[in-house]
Amino acid sequence: MPYRFATLPAMRLTRGTDIALRVLMLTAVQDEQSTVDELSAALDVPRNHLAKIVQRLAHSGLLLTVRGRAGGLRIAPEALEWSVGQLVRDFEGDHEVIDCEDPPCPLRGACRLRGALRRAHEAFLAELDAVSLRSLVEKPTGPLLHQLTAPAP
Amino acid sequence: MPYRFATLPAMRLTRGTDIALRVLMLTAVQDEQSTVDELSAALDVPRNHLAKIVQRLAHSGLLLTVRGRAGGLRIAPEALEWSVGQLVRDFEGDHEVIDCEDPPCPLRGACRLRGALRRAHEAFLAELDAVSLRSLVEKPTGPLLHQLTAPAP
Repeated sequence: MPYRFATLPAMRLTRGTDIALRVLMLTAVQDEQSTVDELSAALDVPRNHLAKIVQRLAHSGLLLTVRGRAGGLRIAPEALEWSVGQLVRDFEGDHEVIDCEDPPCPLRGACRLRGALRRAHEAFLAELDAVSLRSLVEKPTGPLLHQLTAPAP
Repeated sequence: MPYRFATLPAMRLTRGTDIALRVLMLTAVQDEQSTVDELSAALDVPRNHLAKIVQRLAHSGLLLTVRGRAGGLRIAPEALEWSVGQLVRDFEGDHEVIDCEDPPCPLRGACRLRGALRRAHEAFLAELDAVSLRSLVEKPTGPLLHQLTAPAP
């Protein structure tokens, strides 16, 4: 009978986390509120996908949304104190980064590789825990981003 | 003109690295030499794909291959001293984990997120640098793997 390991992992930032980070960096440097349409165009992300991520960020208290005709969204002041690690955990959950259960791996209860990868992933996140969203838009990044995305005068 | 970030990264072990790790763990506990066909069946990986990875491991000196009728392959003794981090670097190269160049991101020369992700990836690898392939097959993993894959008596 063939013996099969479970397929190993992807140790990755999902596309949703990627977009969330970019939405936060962009709204962090914007003077005015923006809209889903504007962000969708600026970040080259389909509107529906972007709308879901904005909803999720608003749910976590990171974006403030105003409904209606003069509506729009802007970053919540508290969001700047969040760390990138926090955001990644919030978006990706605390689920295991390696998939040992589907299909179930016969080694999974006793696997040293699983432990090593789990520790490595923790080290990855710990490094990002030390980086605040505020620090991501300090010089030189923030001013450049502001300049690139400001409406033409 | 829309401003676009480059697509952010995948921070991941590729499938090739995954399979390479499993080939090494398996051959590390085998008493006899094995064949590409056996490994392909045991790991549930298509033969062609597995053959390429075996070739690459042999090229790096991690597997010893014997050609011909009584041929087969086994792990090189030195391979056990390699760290998982070394293997990952060898397989994935030192290329950047985030793709800031395709399409080129206007922030790429001045991006604090890029720096943070680079440091996080380094922390991930540093943790795996401390884990030798030998240690991956210590108790309880090695004996269990040996038992699961040994031919029936």
